[in-house]
Amino acid sequence: MFRIIGEKINGTRKRVGAAIQERDAAFIASLAQRQVAAGAHWIDVNAGTHPDREVADLVWLVETVQAAVESPICLDSANPRALEATLALTQRTPMINSITGEAARLDGILGLVRDSGADVIVLGMGAGGMPATTEDRMTVLRELVAVTRGEGIGDDRLFLDPLIMTVATSTGAAMIALETIRQIRSEFPDAHISCGLSNVSFGLPARGLINRTFLALAVAAGLDTAILDPLDRELGAALVATELLLGQDRHCLRYTRAFRAGTLEPLPSPVEPGPGPAAVA
Amino acid sequence: MFRIIGEKINGTRKRVGAAIQERDAAFIASLAQRQVAAGAHWIDVNAGTHPDREVADLVWLVETVQAAVESPICLDSANPRALEATLALTQRTPMINSITGEAARLDGILGLVRDSGADVIVLGMGAGGMPATTEDRMTVLRELVAVTRGEGIGDDRLFLDPLIMTVATSTGAAMIALETIRQIRSEFPDAHISCGLSNVSFGLPARGLINRTFLALAVAAGLDTAILDPLDRELGAALVATELLLGQDRHCLRYTRAFRAGTLEPLPSPVEPGPGPAAVA
Repeated sequence: MFRIIGEKINGTRKRVGAAIQERDAAFIASLAQRQVAAGAHWIDVNAGTHPDREVADLVWLVETVQAAVESPICLDSANPRALEATLALTQRTPMINSITGEAARLDGILGLVRDSGADVIVLGMGAGGMPATTEDRMTVLRELVAVTRGEGIGDDRLFLDPLIMTVATSTGAAMIALETIRQIRSEFPDAHISCGLSNVSFGLPARGLINRTFLALAVAAGLDTAILDPLDRELGAALVATELLLGQDRHCLRYTRAFRAGTLEPLPSPVEPGPGPAAVA
Repeated sequence: MFRIIGEKINGTRKRVGAAIQERDAAFIASLAQRQVAAGAHWIDVNAGTHPDREVADLVWLVETVQAAVESPICLDSANPRALEATLALTQRTPMINSITGEAARLDGILGLVRDSGADVIVLGMGAGGMPATTEDRMTVLRELVAVTRGEGIGDDRLFLDPLIMTVATSTGAAMIALETIRQIRSEFPDAHISCGLSNVSFGLPARGLINRTFLALAVAAGLDTAILDPLDRELGAALVATELLLGQDRHCLRYTRAFRAGTLEPLPSPVEPGPGPAAVA
């Protein structure tokens, strides 16, 4: 079954950044609780872009989220000190977001993954920067999996990320991502596959439409995890429908339950609704 | 590029059936025009379930639709007499909907396909009724393609239909359809692949959600044609997004054009502006 990493607690977002600086625990707690209620399995915490404050901010975020929800935390930081300080606090198997093939990032974080027993997101990006092709991504991922295996980290702790680029600047971007997902699934059957979903629509209008359509295609290709906005109702509805269609919802139980809970359709408009299709045909 | 067979002019629908009996040409013409405006390539015409009237009704429908739009007609009938009478009237290459492996249906219609030069929908259903598996479907389709080739009908005139069943009664129904689409695409590269899209959601609530999610998966698998409701705006939006993601929309031109035309998002909650395409789509 597909699992969601809730992306909302990210200090680079203005409102969240302010809440972190003001230590507004009620706001952060609510954001965690609402994501869990909407189906998030992990709660991602990102303290934002203040290196001097990141350790203290991330520690506060982890403590605040753990006081609010039972869910495991996804520690979203490239700073080994911030990760080390927060790994010590996590009450359930955390996830580290993320390692790459860049030596500095890998060297500083790999030992923490090994010693903590954390799950880890592995980006298919090497020292050469953003890879162009599926094969470039697979080359980096193969090297990284060889490294994690060498450290005794089981493939089932890995969340391999195919690096989703936007279709706004490259017509083939989504196809490259989907093909990478298929190859990861085939080559590393015990690993998970995760991605930052909304990257695919960066720079385009009506992004939600692209995101939810891509989610269906990516889940069909083998994606089993994504960092996304669990409060996007239409995205959640697309996921429920996708799992139904992929034969992962016996007797349509989750689908019909979601329908009865009212989550499959957009929120009713506050204005009197007009005639539906039945009125025309 | 994906092509749509507009399904709205179907006499089994109460309002359309009444319009046919009343010879309400304005209603039928409008339904044809609105489907074409919404992107339909063919206009399906189905006279309904009155065998004694079908020939006259279908002739009237073809004449009425052809007077209203330039589009080719999809003749939706299992009645060789109705097909023969209307094939003589069609001004552009028509499509016949459909032949199956059932001897009676095949024998009566195959010669009409051969002699008229029409395109034809070929259902993967044999004398044994609805096939259970992908392999059963492929067995029937292989036999039927052997027959059409024997008659000199080119594969590019065939629209092979994988027979979509509803996921309401069989968890694997959509997966069987998707796998059949992939196998058809691989085995008959020159043939088109078409389906009756909304079958997949029969018996379930919020059918539009299932239909548009399935459309994305089916197009990714190789579907290039479908009988569907072109006036379903959200379905059309999903198709535009799917083609964008599959690399079939260079520079996002069709996507951004659809966005600017306002068709990618649901209609704003209306203060009803009166009849016309904007009010009904």
